[in-house]
Amino acid sequence: MNLNFPSKLLETAVNEFATLPGIGQKTALRLVLHMLRQDSASLEAFGTTIIKLGTELRFCKICRNICDEDICPVCADNRRDHTTICVVENIKDVMIIENTQQYRGVYHVLGGIISPMDGLGPSDLNIGSLEDRLKQGGIKEIILALSATMEGDTTNFYLFRRLSQYNPVFSTLARGVSIGDELEYTDEITLGRSILNRIPFNVS
Amino acid sequence: MNLNFPSKLLETAVNEFATLPGIGQKTALRLVLHMLRQDSASLEAFGTTIIKLGTELRFCKICRNICDEDICPVCADNRRDHTTICVVENIKDVMIIENTQQYRGVYHVLGGIISPMDGLGPSDLNIGSLEDRLKQGGIKEIILALSATMEGDTTNFYLFRRLSQYNPVFSTLARGVSIGDELEYTDEITLGRSILNRIPFNVS
Repeated sequence: MNLNFPSKLLETAVNEFATLPGIGQKTALRLVLHMLRQDSASLEAFGTTIIKLGTELRFCKICRNICDEDICPVCADNRRDHTTICVVENIKDVMIIENTQQYRGVYHVLGGIISPMDGLGPSDLNIGSLEDRLKQGGIKEIILALSATMEGDTTNFYLFRRLSQYNPVFSTLARGVSIGDELEYTDEITLGRSILNRIPFNVS
Repeated sequence: MNLNFPSKLLETAVNEFATLPGIGQKTALRLVLHMLRQDSASLEAFGTTIIKLGTELRFCKICRNICDEDICPVCADNRRDHTTICVVENIKDVMIIENTQQYRGVYHVLGGIISPMDGLGPSDLNIGSLEDRLKQGGIKEIILALSATMEGDTTNFYLFRRLSQYNPVFSTLARGVSIGDELEYTDEITLGRSILNRIPFNVS
């Protein structure tokens, strides 16, 4: 559909929304028309929040999770087990695992997984900072909680090879997570059990 | 799903997106995480556009369509027929009709239709400004292009009663079998009306 917009600003707004994943021009128009029914104070709050996403959001200096401070709430929590690091692909995975309330260790957010198809290699991920944490010592266990896909397995293998010199125990999520599934779509009970029943990881 | 957000700002952003129609918390999170991969300049452009929707967007003083100036491009166009007003529910309808490139008259946007269920009465709609246009004279025809629903019919009836003192010709969109439709799949009411309101057939 090629719409004739009565206003340049309206067109710009629709095009901005249409850049979001899963949102086409028709849906974008519906969203923008909905926003027009809001008062200007609500729109200013919405717009300011989006601008702040680019300027104020920070990444935890330890685990690279998104946070408002230098250190994220999980890393700053002394009651958690700082000798166990759960390695995840992105911050959504941290949120999903936290939601199960089964895990008391800390995290490390890779910011992706090794995927030659998408041009993502080890140097594009937060692996150096993970290695630094192991170099500093005191880490007993690395839980590899990546998606059960080929890319996830590749990344697990790479991490195991690079980090085993620091002698942590490697474990991975119990295979209650179906092969081929992404963490995002796994039900909470299965995911919670998979963390409790994590199994030793070794390459043989 | 009740997510634990590592950042208050992230939570605010997700909640803002989740207020949009058809977007739940999970989709909102996916959209926000997508935005986080943009640079801060893009996010500022996006946010500023939304803020401007509340401050810079104006409504045409004549037809109440959305525009950037005092008068919308359609009302400002001297080549159009300013004696024929097509009454529509919202600006999306203007865009859809303009897209057909078949209409050369002007518009009037009601901003809704009479719907007691939603608490929308005549005084909530742009009917007074439509009456003013008729009072000023020179309007020959009013095309009622509202939805073919009970609320649309109610609004048509109300407009006819209130505006017929100015003696315009009233017309409404032809109701009938859609171009390309097979009779078998046309609903009975439409088909019945199409037979009653049959039009002369000629090959020329």
